[in-house]
Amino acid sequence: MIHEIGEFGLIRSIRELVCEQEAQDGDDDFRLLLGIGDDAAAWRTSEATELATTDTLVDGVHFRHDLTSWEDLGWKSMAVNLSDIAAMGGRPLFALVTLGLTRDTSVEDVRDLYLGMLAACRTYGCRIAGGDVVHSPVDFVTVAMTGIAGDRVLTRRAANPGDSVAVTGPLGSAAGGLQALLRGDLPHDESGLHLQAALNRPVPRLDACETLIHCGVKAAMDVSDGLVDDLAKLCEASGVGAVVEAGRVPADAFLRDAYPEGWLQLALNGGEDYELLFTGADAVVEAAVTTLPQATVVGRIVADHPGRVRVVDEVGADVALSRSGWDHFA
Amino acid sequence: MIHEIGEFGLIRSIRELVCEQEAQDGDDDFRLLLGIGDDAAAWRTSEATELATTDTLVDGVHFRHDLTSWEDLGWKSMAVNLSDIAAMGGRPLFALVTLGLTRDTSVEDVRDLYLGMLAACRTYGCRIAGGDVVHSPVDFVTVAMTGIAGDRVLTRRAANPGDSVAVTGPLGSAAGGLQALLRGDLPHDESGLHLQAALNRPVPRLDACETLIHCGVKAAMDVSDGLVDDLAKLCEASGVGAVVEAGRVPADAFLRDAYPEGWLQLALNGGEDYELLFTGADAVVEAAVTTLPQATVVGRIVADHPGRVRVVDEVGADVALSRSGWDHFA
Repeated sequence: MIHEIGEFGLIRSIRELVCEQEAQDGDDDFRLLLGIGDDAAAWRTSEATELATTDTLVDGVHFRHDLTSWEDLGWKSMAVNLSDIAAMGGRPLFALVTLGLTRDTSVEDVRDLYLGMLAACRTYGCRIAGGDVVHSPVDFVTVAMTGIAGDRVLTRRAANPGDSVAVTGPLGSAAGGLQALLRGDLPHDESGLHLQAALNRPVPRLDACETLIHCGVKAAMDVSDGLVDDLAKLCEASGVGAVVEAGRVPADAFLRDAYPEGWLQLALNGGEDYELLFTGADAVVEAAVTTLPQATVVGRIVADHPGRVRVVDEVGADVALSRSGWDHFA
Repeated sequence: MIHEIGEFGLIRSIRELVCEQEAQDGDDDFRLLLGIGDDAAAWRTSEATELATTDTLVDGVHFRHDLTSWEDLGWKSMAVNLSDIAAMGGRPLFALVTLGLTRDTSVEDVRDLYLGMLAACRTYGCRIAGGDVVHSPVDFVTVAMTGIAGDRVLTRRAANPGDSVAVTGPLGSAAGGLQALLRGDLPHDESGLHLQAALNRPVPRLDACETLIHCGVKAAMDVSDGLVDDLAKLCEASGVGAVVEAGRVPADAFLRDAYPEGWLQLALNGGEDYELLFTGADAVVEAAVTTLPQATVVGRIVADHPGRVRVVDEVGADVALSRSGWDHFA
């Protein structure tokens, strides 16, 4: 049963199957640069690097209608894919939208969903080019998105021992918002609005990825499953380990105020942040962090067991992690 | 509620919303040629026409595990998208695979699913480039596929009054197979195997679309929802009507033998045929039909209410239709 090997075990076994086909890859006009295992697939045409990614939100698994409005669901379903394009250093082109809907969905709900998607598309320069609407016993939204990148693509495979590790902004607020909504104690003030927006209106960092590339960053991904978990994936892809300094992990004042005890675990493991995580030589990361207002260094890449991430406190002792990222099958 | 306006009413209202964005379409490097409403989206780059399409199969709606093996499901999920690429006159490039799986799916099931998908990919020259695996209370498979076409794309918008209407091969066998499986009376012989394969191992007509383009055909789509229903969509997109001659609708001997009474309705309305439906001036269609062994003329495009399709018998009387295509919401 797949819950025994988990989402990442499953993806690994799929990757092995698909790898055999990649070995036969013979079409030089459309050379696959990156297949399964990065934020998006990438291939070269004679004139550009093209990107494609897909992400799905399922009712009861990735969202709940009582916590996320249809319009926010639309925004979010587009934003999580835009974030994958940002994580490759690209810009978005076209989206295909698949809606799985129960029969008693209202036409207004679908309209609101599309308004949210179109708002995200307008904001980030993407267009809805097609899709599919199917009946389903559970609501789900799948967006597939194409994009374009220059010669330099940000990948998970390019981290090296000695690299600085940085993120483009504060972490944990989306998870803080979700936790407060689930508990029913979201504050009715600016703080509550902020945490809720962090959950339901994530901001893909398309504005940051150009700077990263310009500064010479080569390794990046977006933080969707939590800093520790995603950094572990980047490290595994690069064959390295990493050490995160707990004292440098950024969280905004709203999250710290709402969770004076728990904010660090939320920032380390919460997920759905959609900030970019990146690594590079000190001077490269320094240049990026100086240019991007909220970006900050959080640790260092080390030679270690591939994918091993330690979080340490100010005296170098390991910080216990409350849980390790999102694995919906586990 | 969307079941009141049905799948096609819903798609129409979505198209209106999305059309507003298309009006703002300003990126000349990637000009959207075809958005919502054709078999695939198409856009021009400076060197090619690129295609993208997506199709979803949901457990209990589009398939049942007791009627379709995981391996066949994999083949079919890829084939229905390959068919959309064929319907545009393109060739496939890359596929993104989204699996929504219940927790108690076995790893072997997922492996079989991928083996089926990879078999279709190998057969038709497509590669799996990425995707997403999510937990879901219901199994579903969404494939998004990119493709490439030359200067001439087959669209639904190009039918003209006076055109011949033709299909690339026999219809109704998939629906006949489904009906027999549902009734539990699928014959245990060559006929049963044929009908079951028609349902579970559809053949995308990528071999035929090059001939269609070469012969000068401009209007085509694939038959997924049934001949009458799909011809109506093509006619609506082209602002024309059509008349189908019941006596010319092709069905193979297996279907006729298994359903001596019902084969015509299955061929007219069954769906999941994945043959190509195309129209063109008589000489154009004649050339295509002569070249493609199983292709045959079935009717004519007429000036009529857009989307109106009549089926007539040998004396020109209307043939009653048992039902009109697939609409899972209705």
